[in-house]
Amino acid sequence: MIRDHLSVQLASPFWSAYQELVRTVVIPYQYDILNDRIVGVEPSGVVRNFRIAAGMDEGGFTGMVFQDSDVAKWLEAVGYALRSHRDPELERVADEVIDIIVAAQQPDGYLNTYFTIAAPEKRWTNLMECHELYCAGHMLEAAVAYFVATGKRKLLDAMCKFVDYIADTFGPEEGKIHGYDGHQEIELALIKLYGVTHNRRHLDLACYFLEARGTEPNFLREEWERRGGESFWRTNKQSKPDLAYHQAHKPVREQDEAVGHAVRAVYMYTAMADIARLTGDADLHKVCERLWHDVTGRQMYIVGGIGSTRHGEAFTFDYDLPNETAYAETCASIGLIFFANRMIRIAPKRKYADVMERALYNVVIGSVALDGKHYCYVNPLALWPPANIQNPDRKHVKPVRQAWFGCACCPPNVARLMMSLGDYIYTIDEEKGKVYVHLYIGSEASFSVGGREIVLIQDSEMPWQGRVKFRVALGEGPVNLSLALRIPSWCANTPSVRVNGNLLSIASVTTKDGYIEIERTWTDGDVLELDLPMKATFVVSHPQVRATNGMVAIERGPIVYCVEEADNGANLASVAIDTHAKLRENGATSQVCRLS
Amino acid sequence: MIRDHLSVQLASPFWSAYQELVRTVVIPYQYDILNDRIVGVEPSGVVRNFRIAAGMDEGGFTGMVFQDSDVAKWLEAVGYALRSHRDPELERVADEVIDIIVAAQQPDGYLNTYFTIAAPEKRWTNLMECHELYCAGHMLEAAVAYFVATGKRKLLDAMCKFVDYIADTFGPEEGKIHGYDGHQEIELALIKLYGVTHNRRHLDLACYFLEARGTEPNFLREEWERRGGESFWRTNKQSKPDLAYHQAHKPVREQDEAVGHAVRAVYMYTAMADIARLTGDADLHKVCERLWHDVTGRQMYIVGGIGSTRHGEAFTFDYDLPNETAYAETCASIGLIFFANRMIRIAPKRKYADVMERALYNVVIGSVALDGKHYCYVNPLALWPPANIQNPDRKHVKPVRQAWFGCACCPPNVARLMMSLGDYIYTIDEEKGKVYVHLYIGSEASFSVGGREIVLIQDSEMPWQGRVKFRVALGEGPVNLSLALRIPSWCANTPSVRVNGNLLSIASVTTKDGYIEIERTWTDGDVLELDLPMKATFVVSHPQVRATNGMVAIERGPIVYCVEEADNGANLASVAIDTHAKLRENGATSQVCRLS
Repeated sequence: MIRDHLSVQLASPFWSAYQELVRTVVIPYQYDILNDRIVGVEPSGVVRNFRIAAGMDEGGFTGMVFQDSDVAKWLEAVGYALRSHRDPELERVADEVIDIIVAAQQPDGYLNTYFTIAAPEKRWTNLMECHELYCAGHMLEAAVAYFVATGKRKLLDAMCKFVDYIADTFGPEEGKIHGYDGHQEIELALIKLYGVTHNRRHLDLACYFLEARGTEPNFLREEWERRGGESFWRTNKQSKPDLAYHQAHKPVREQDEAVGHAVRAVYMYTAMADIARLTGDADLHKVCERLWHDVTGRQMYIVGGIGSTRHGEAFTFDYDLPNETAYAETCASIGLIFFANRMIRIAPKRKYADVMERALYNVVIGSVALDGKHYCYVNPLALWPPANIQNPDRKHVKPVRQAWFGCACCPPNVARLMMSLGDYIYTIDEEKGKVYVHLYIGSEASFSVGGREIVLIQDSEMPWQGRVKFRVALGEGPVNLSLALRIPSWCANTPSVRVNGNLLSIASVTTKDGYIEIERTWTDGDVLELDLPMKATFVVSHPQVRATNGMVAIERGPIVYCVEEADNGANLASVAIDTHAKLRENGATSQVCRLS
Repeated sequence: MIRDHLSVQLASPFWSAYQELVRTVVIPYQYDILNDRIVGVEPSGVVRNFRIAAGMDEGGFTGMVFQDSDVAKWLEAVGYALRSHRDPELERVADEVIDIIVAAQQPDGYLNTYFTIAAPEKRWTNLMECHELYCAGHMLEAAVAYFVATGKRKLLDAMCKFVDYIADTFGPEEGKIHGYDGHQEIELALIKLYGVTHNRRHLDLACYFLEARGTEPNFLREEWERRGGESFWRTNKQSKPDLAYHQAHKPVREQDEAVGHAVRAVYMYTAMADIARLTGDADLHKVCERLWHDVTGRQMYIVGGIGSTRHGEAFTFDYDLPNETAYAETCASIGLIFFANRMIRIAPKRKYADVMERALYNVVIGSVALDGKHYCYVNPLALWPPANIQNPDRKHVKPVRQAWFGCACCPPNVARLMMSLGDYIYTIDEEKGKVYVHLYIGSEASFSVGGREIVLIQDSEMPWQGRVKFRVALGEGPVNLSLALRIPSWCANTPSVRVNGNLLSIASVTTKDGYIEIERTWTDGDVLELDLPMKATFVVSHPQVRATNGMVAIERGPIVYCVEEADNGANLASVAIDTHAKLRENGATSQVCRLS
């Protein structure tokens, strides 16, 4: 049994700065946006919508039909922030917001400000397009995060009531809607709820939504027919619903290719992996493996980006990975990290953590400016700024990060991932007394194995050098514990391991699925040093990736390097590289690889 | 003074076959389509629309708002066909069609079946979108071609009446519409009309339409405002009219970059060059030169394709020439050939004929299947068939030529160009007694210089070898004549010229603007042999063309070679080519260049 939450405090020169940025800039800034307090920015209406729905204010609904999810993602990030750093003022503010949210809940448990204010008679009539269960899912994730951090149940109880109402409304039984949302999200959220409530009904509802999807008669098609083909988003009618966009073209268990909207897809795969683990469903696990292989083996950019077309922000087909017109939405890579994390929880394998690390270093943090207020939604692999302005095929690609208030989807997603990054570093197999280390991020983790409280302190020079030091702190006498350390696929040479200064013979150490396992009896203060050699390397793509025929990338450690005209001069795209020459690394902690 | 029409009969193993295809397949096939006689093909309604407008039939309008132009382009091609090959049966059929067309003309001269049948009250209310003057222009071109071929005036007289009505309706005078069409075409057509009528009013009207374009207050914007932003094509209103799409963003004389819809642009430039020539307007000529330089120097594909985005079938910006998402519409290259032809008439320069030849061999004939019934509208520079099916960014690019009846725009345009190809080979400068040879296409040309009838017989091995033979046939005694022979820029070495078997010293020959001038006294039966050495050559693009960084093309003579997996095996896109190696030409008339 893998525990969902360890107590992990980040202590990383590299990563703590991002958490600090989220804590001190992103969360306060977004709070002001939610409350329409930023001068010169179009009012988001988010909190006001809840106040109106609660009868505390008057007026109409503002914003997108899924506007509620903005405050949910903010609250979730706040929950993670409070878990590591209990800030009474932030907690007071969050409690106020929760009071408003809960006041907007309807007597039957329903909670959605768009339908409450603007279209009460249309509740549950356009699941395909209107994100009702999607918004519920995000609010569930917020409720769980806030409860875990603070122990406060107000939002959690309100959401449990909403889930009861949803479970009474949806399901296979007669009289219920045999349906599911157009945007997967509630499935993974219900699993999180189950993680704190252990209420089987919550897990069952997640399973229902997942298993109903794509079965015949197709719910989304029938719903669309009932609407006469009318669309919430377009004035023209659609000639037919695009079921693959919603991954509802066939039953989930029959899916073997990643299709459609990339974020919807990976949110769904995340829930599938969760359910496979919790129900011990080996068949479902196989489906997850198949989809993992398709996504990461044939449809993923070298940076861990997915979804190669802006049309539907979607997957296209195998090896179709254009550089300059990539979509590779930040949220999709975050979803891919969720999926990797859940696959690791079933059975740790290096390939999952490799992808997680790749997406984290090369999409997620690349998408955020160092001011915390500018973001890439689309993460191109190559840029030609005049084309992005003057060629309509490329207008979705922005040559500079955009002020985040334009669309509130990716920035809060980055915020919640950053604040919960501690959850992605370790997993503990309590039965086997084994601690898996997936990411080398400086941190202090507290956990118990076999009834013993253990603190594991990690120091890491990543991503600039592969030197990592672990110190074991035990209150009392020695413990038997296996430390399973991921050897990343970028590791340029045999890694070295020292325990209390003594070099271990790697040949004598068990290696399984890309993890070396150091099993021994640990004493308080024992130190393990791991050195993962890094080397700048040319990487070529699969030959079927036409967009990169004749090209190389440069990787060093977990980082795919970016070569820019700002550093290297004009006409960089027409420069050829001699791959027979050696790459020279400049400086001890080579942060920049220059073409020499 | 350059004459518009010489009598030129093609006699080329290569090109005559295309003319034969048009004569025996394309023209009869399109006639059946115009008359809704092809089983299984959606009725075009073209002739029926005219019958209804003439009161000869009942029913509603069928097809696009510019459906009339289909029969006009067909008639124009028929005119050219009859010019070289007077076929009584084809002429009888065409006369019948002309009877129907003329019967549909309204008492005031107006002729347009859409507005006559479907929206008589909307005549001249949406010039921007509804192609009224565009259709008039195509019918004018047909009338001129048919008159020149047959001497029959019925359609010509009807169109002159229509033009009188148009000239009474449009113009700078008070009470007239100060406007012009959204799709340029009537301008160049009026020049053609002027070429046979010599009626100054026809030239003046062309000048008016050209000069009014893009001036303030902007006609298209004001018209759009009068419609309240309603669009004929879309259900949503446009937020503002896209004036650049119509090349109406600024006065024509101030334009220095090719923008907007590529076909509209080159049709306009063609008329501009015509007017510059006919009015001796050096300033306007300079504008044409500037636009020629922009189109061919910065926005043209190596094959002579233009318009690099499907969005608006338009130009984008300098050096933005993506291979796999190119638009490069066949009609746009045909329009570019028109433009080149008109620039040549002002002052022959190799650069114009080079582009004309490039577009002819590499876009126009590549766009037609050898059955004459399948066409490329979009001419990509590289193809990846699965992407064209599965990536929505690329659905406009078709991996196989399409059955032509889907959209009737490009196929009749190809037909009329093929049938009038003789007009592009020579120009005669009667004053200087000079015959320019722009294209090496086997043919027999009859013309008079200084009152002497001369027949010039060209034999050419193009495009496979650069050997060309000219024979001069004179009824009587010798004539002084200068033959100005274009030396194509692909010419791999010094060309050789022999007169009656005697090698001329090239050093002793005048060369001007890429033409060598052989001035001498010719006797009946004299033979000039020209040999333009061809050699397969690697060609690289300007370094700013990002799409081709690291790539080469292979050219030999006028042909840009295409390398296909069908001939070379799979994964061709990942094959690298060693440009230090020599290209080996297989066979005497190397039609195929293999990677060796």
